[in-house]
Amino acid sequence: MATSSSTRTPATPVRVTVVREDGASRRREQIAGEEPLEIRAQGPGQDPVRVAVTMRTPGNDYELAAGFMYGEGLITPDDIATIRYCTPADEEQRYNVLSVDLRRPFDPGAFERNFYAASSCGVCGKASIDAIEVRCDVVRDEVRVASTVIASLPATLRGAQRLFDATGGLHATGLFTLGGELLAAREDVGRHNAMDKLIGYELLEGRLPLAERIVLVSGRASFELVQKAAVAGAPIMCAVSAPSTLAVETARRLGVTLVGFLREDRFTIYAHGERIEIGAPA
Amino acid sequence: MATSSSTRTPATPVRVTVVREDGASRRREQIAGEEPLEIRAQGPGQDPVRVAVTMRTPGNDYELAAGFMYGEGLITPDDIATIRYCTPADEEQRYNVLSVDLRRPFDPGAFERNFYAASSCGVCGKASIDAIEVRCDVVRDEVRVASTVIASLPATLRGAQRLFDATGGLHATGLFTLGGELLAAREDVGRHNAMDKLIGYELLEGRLPLAERIVLVSGRASFELVQKAAVAGAPIMCAVSAPSTLAVETARRLGVTLVGFLREDRFTIYAHGERIEIGAPA
Repeated sequence: MATSSSTRTPATPVRVTVVREDGASRRREQIAGEEPLEIRAQGPGQDPVRVAVTMRTPGNDYELAAGFMYGEGLITPDDIATIRYCTPADEEQRYNVLSVDLRRPFDPGAFERNFYAASSCGVCGKASIDAIEVRCDVVRDEVRVASTVIASLPATLRGAQRLFDATGGLHATGLFTLGGELLAAREDVGRHNAMDKLIGYELLEGRLPLAERIVLVSGRASFELVQKAAVAGAPIMCAVSAPSTLAVETARRLGVTLVGFLREDRFTIYAHGERIEIGAPA
Repeated sequence: MATSSSTRTPATPVRVTVVREDGASRRREQIAGEEPLEIRAQGPGQDPVRVAVTMRTPGNDYELAAGFMYGEGLITPDDIATIRYCTPADEEQRYNVLSVDLRRPFDPGAFERNFYAASSCGVCGKASIDAIEVRCDVVRDEVRVASTVIASLPATLRGAQRLFDATGGLHATGLFTLGGELLAAREDVGRHNAMDKLIGYELLEGRLPLAERIVLVSGRASFELVQKAAVAGAPIMCAVSAPSTLAVETARRLGVTLVGFLREDRFTIYAHGERIEIGAPA
């Protein structure tokens, strides 16, 4: 364990003691990696600006940085010139600091201003949604999806959660076609990071907005996750567990179909159910 | 749903559609509240300083603010003069902005500096732990607890999760004696908030450090949660689900017993197992 803080691998073996009713035994177990990542942004000829530090599972860091900055309204896909790890003196944190180099100057105050976009009236849920609405279109994608496809998604995502299989301890976000085909999955100890990685991947591949796509998260649906899906233009977002009030209100306002408590034999629709065709498979 | 963003209640009823294999039905369902809370700090005669905004379930907000600021090393229990909601013009966010009034001046740069305490070498897991170590003692509490007590904790906490029962969508943190008696439980859509509320409650009651106490979280054990438990001086922290690498390393360095995958008939010890007596009940 002595070197785990410098490991760059998404999972690490550790010695543990497993206690059962009939006694204890020692064994090795894989656990999910967690390391800080500092995201910096920099325009041409500009000094680097520290944008955020997030605790994340190492891997897909460029996607994470791109997805994070896009989801917060700090960049458009065309702004990115390159993404690179910085090279500090200390090898220990060689892969924990990266820079998003932009084609245009980066405004150091942009993140705080976006965060407090409605700060003239303080903070409240309504102001939080207003702030997203000014920087993303309401999703008007008139797609339809069969309820049987929705019900099939968790088992498909579960089959792709390789790190979860090893560690039992990561969140996952999956991207699907309207037919239920899994296009990509990302895992992380932070649920927002798993979403950022997935959206960042699509951004770097030039495939935003997420028209005709379904996003599935393995846990609950918070305001923050619905915000990220809406900004990326996904018409349908599903969660295996419960949504919050602000998540539901955000989905309703921004035109996103929101499904929660998604199980094999049932699910609950919280917003824009018109995209879901309920019935038996064709 | 129109007024949910201004509600101050921890759960709100919404109209939903439940889809099952044999069709769909409309019904009302309780969902967990989520609203932003802005935490400000202010010394005598000083202008208020915005410390953080967190998305939280309304309720126990003073505890949340106190616990958050304490866990981040921004205050000691003796620093707090009073905590109060600010009174902005807009009724909508009357209860979403609060101020922690201190007996001494508050340094506006303290939060950022603590966060980047090791910034001379950038960020890495080791530096993150170093930064906590300078502001909290290694936990040396020589308590012992029976493995049967540990195994009993999740069922006890589950019995106290009233909001979870209503909404199916909140994290919980519980505080226990070494005999397994539940002293307090807090719930929130954010797992860090549930921990902050619990520790803030103990702080405001003058009961820190958490000597001879067990803390249980309903989900996974991240670096951030172990940090908060260690700063509060808890000798034993348990999680129903998996820990991360950095959580394990932090617990080992800071003297906290860390248990994960805590189920009725088994659990796994990741750090400082010397405090757990394995065997049958007396």
